Amino acid sequence: MKDLRINGDRLWNRIHSMAKIGATPNGGVHRLALSQEDKRSRDLFIKWGQSIDCKTRVDAMGNIFVRLEGTKRNLPPILFGSHLDSQPTGGKYDGSLGVLAGLELLETLRENSIDLEYPLELVSWTSEEGSRFSPAMISSGVFGGVFSLDYAYSIKDKRRVSLKEALEKIDYLGSSTPFGRIYSGFFELHIEQGPILEKEKKSIGVVKGVQGIRWYELSIKGQEVHAGPFPMKIRRDPVRVLPKIISALYHLEKEFGSDTRITIGDISVHPGVCNTVPGEIKFTLDLRHPNSEVMDGMNQRIRQLVENENQESSLYLSHQELWYCPPAKFDLQCINAVKDAAKRLNYSFIEMFSGAGHDAVYLSRVTPTAMIFIPCKDGISHNEKESITRSDAIRGTNVLLHSILNYINQLKS
Amino acid sequence: MKDLRINGDRLWNRIHSMAKIGATPNGGVHRLALSQEDKRSRDLFIKWGQSIDCKTRVDAMGNIFVRLEGTKRNLPPILFGSHLDSQPTGGKYDGSLGVLAGLELLETLRENSIDLEYPLELVSWTSEEGSRFSPAMISSGVFGGVFSLDYAYSIKDKRRVSLKEALEKIDYLGSSTPFGRIYSGFFELHIEQGPILEKEKKSIGVVKGVQGIRWYELSIKGQEVHAGPFPMKIRRDPVRVLPKIISALYHLEKEFGSDTRITIGDISVHPGVCNTVPGEIKFTLDLRHPNSEVMDGMNQRIRQLVENENQESSLYLSHQELWYCPPAKFDLQCINAVKDAAKRLNYSFIEMFSGAGHDAVYLSRVTPTAMIFIPCKDGISHNEKESITRSDAIRGTNVLLHSILNYINQLKS
Repeated sequence: MKDLRINGDRLWNRIHSMAKIGATPNGGVHRLALSQEDKRSRDLFIKWGQSIDCKTRVDAMGNIFVRLEGTKRNLPPILFGSHLDSQPTGGKYDGSLGVLAGLELLETLRENSIDLEYPLELVSWTSEEGSRFSPAMISSGVFGGVFSLDYAYSIKDKRRVSLKEALEKIDYLGSSTPFGRIYSGFFELHIEQGPILEKEKKSIGVVKGVQGIRWYELSIKGQEVHAGPFPMKIRRDPVRVLPKIISALYHLEKEFGSDTRITIGDISVHPGVCNTVPGEIKFTLDLRHPNSEVMDGMNQRIRQLVENENQESSLYLSHQELWYCPPAKFDLQCINAVKDAAKRLNYSFIEMFSGAGHDAVYLSRVTPTAMIFIPCKDGISHNEKESITRSDAIRGTNVLLHSILNYINQLKS
Repeated sequence: MKDLRINGDRLWNRIHSMAKIGATPNGGVHRLALSQEDKRSRDLFIKWGQSIDCKTRVDAMGNIFVRLEGTKRNLPPILFGSHLDSQPTGGKYDGSLGVLAGLELLETLRENSIDLEYPLELVSWTSEEGSRFSPAMISSGVFGGVFSLDYAYSIKDKRRVSLKEALEKIDYLGSSTPFGRIYSGFFELHIEQGPILEKEKKSIGVVKGVQGIRWYELSIKGQEVHAGPFPMKIRRDPVRVLPKIISALYHLEKEFGSDTRITIGDISVHPGVCNTVPGEIKFTLDLRHPNSEVMDGMNQRIRQLVENENQESSLYLSHQELWYCPPAKFDLQCINAVKDAAKRLNYSFIEMFSGAGHDAVYLSRVTPTAMIFIPCKDGISHNEKESITRSDAIRGTNVLLHSILNYINQLKS
């Protein structure tokens, strides 16, 4: 099996067929979780799964599983996969690569008539991105016991549609239990979404863990008055203090070092009219760091900033933590399975941490887990310009295949 | 006629009956131009106009006129009024006061059987606020020859509905020509929407002119990337430069003095997702000053700011002027008619400039014009908390009545 390789043309064609669903004029995809576009991508994925003679199953979170039976049916399966939903203006490879690489891997085993002892299951997780239903990675979170099913069902999008209603609407509310299931391990292939592999001229990232992520919503409340007659000096204008608050937040990078990531991704103003001094500004804050003590230190700084500002100012600043996903460390045996695969395939690689959250984070809480990264052009992701090379996609998929073969050998020995 | 006074109860009741249309839970009104709420307020206004036996007329901009015939029918009428549309979360008195005071004035003349030589026309202007259809004061602008009718018809709201379509939809697209008409003068009673009268403890503001207003949209373009993996130092994050730009804009007040008004009323972020570094920020800027040279000086500073920023930064800053309404100076004879009315009625008053734009600005280009202000609580307007006292409303309406009577006497002499 050492010489086994996946079919690169078939992989690359499937990736670009999938990218037609929700394709945007600028070359990206718009395939929000549980939208009509998401439904079409799911239907196609299931069709492909069945075409290679695998059983498909949808669970109560809408996660889709494609199973290749093992010679020993009762062994806990090896799980691998990613997600098919996208950001509002996302790229063609984020998520899709990991799912379709999984499909290619199964087809390669099938056509080479290779029977493994362990059952294999390929999964496409529901609503990884979190851009329609926040928080992100909700269904792997339910799978990993981090969120309750009731909580996940109750999450609403901006139009007040609940996740459960959205599952029903596209007919993907399955029946099997979406948590508490036993697997032998989980592997996820993904684009890096950052510039490090490209800069270091490496083909494969052996991912040892993932940065912690904390999401906040901050609000500055002032007084809504008319833009004309009200003298500047007696206004309580929240926009006027925004520069100070934003600057203080970006200053966290200086204090906590260059592994810190600070993103203010959305700002909204109420009532949001040209000739009215706003009564309130709200904005999101996404903070990341690989070290959990640093994550706690930054959280404390934000509390202090809010307290200090409220003592000094006639405006009212508040903050709310929306979500916290602590830094994850992956399983040594899984990491070694990936590293050995890259070595044997003679691909250049480095060990690294992931800057983005992935379903693998929550999986790592309930089963041995590792990830494989491939480079993406200029490190750009969550963007319609997201781009990868055909040969990197093929390398990543071969590493995924051989990581799983290595891991099964380790389990047997 | 010196002792003639309006009926305060009737005025106050009408104001609060009108405020029920589009009433919000917090005591304000939501009555966007040409919405269903606006239609209901128009229907009620016309019903009231007809109930006092006046002719009503709707022109091709949807402006509503209520006419009390003069003994000399051919004299150019005296015009007065304001508007019935509101901000998204506006107050009960902004606009409505001036319209319903006009109605009360007509009814007072009717029930006292007073026949004036000059015809009187009360007007309710379409879409003064500009919050659904921008720019503001569109129909008085068409009336004053500042905007063409075709331009006004083509303006679209956020849902791409044109102003003409909106007029048709609520059945208020009349036939009479909405510009080029001859009037003897125009008077507008309005709440001050600022804190000056209250601070100076005066009942009446004799308004000599209005600040100039310039609206801009500014944009900062960066690069949309993933919030996690992309190192801070190589991001092109538009939020990061926002503090510098906003601070520079507020600095205009220091340079151009305390009559300057700077308002950033709306900010929008694209794509506006928690875990994506934004590709673009857009925001509105509303600049005001009573002096037109200062208005030009500020405009030049903004151009410089944009140029300098683009030389220094890897982001792309741009600005677009959306609208400019130069400072207005009102007619001396009209101003004196208001001042004499306040004096004879024994109400305290000051002469002042308006900080807000009003339909009177564009009217002043084609007919002698003045305005009357009354105080509003804490100067708060464009806000559901907007509040005035019953006695100030009555005083303002009596001043409107006697200003018109004075003005007619002046015209005759």
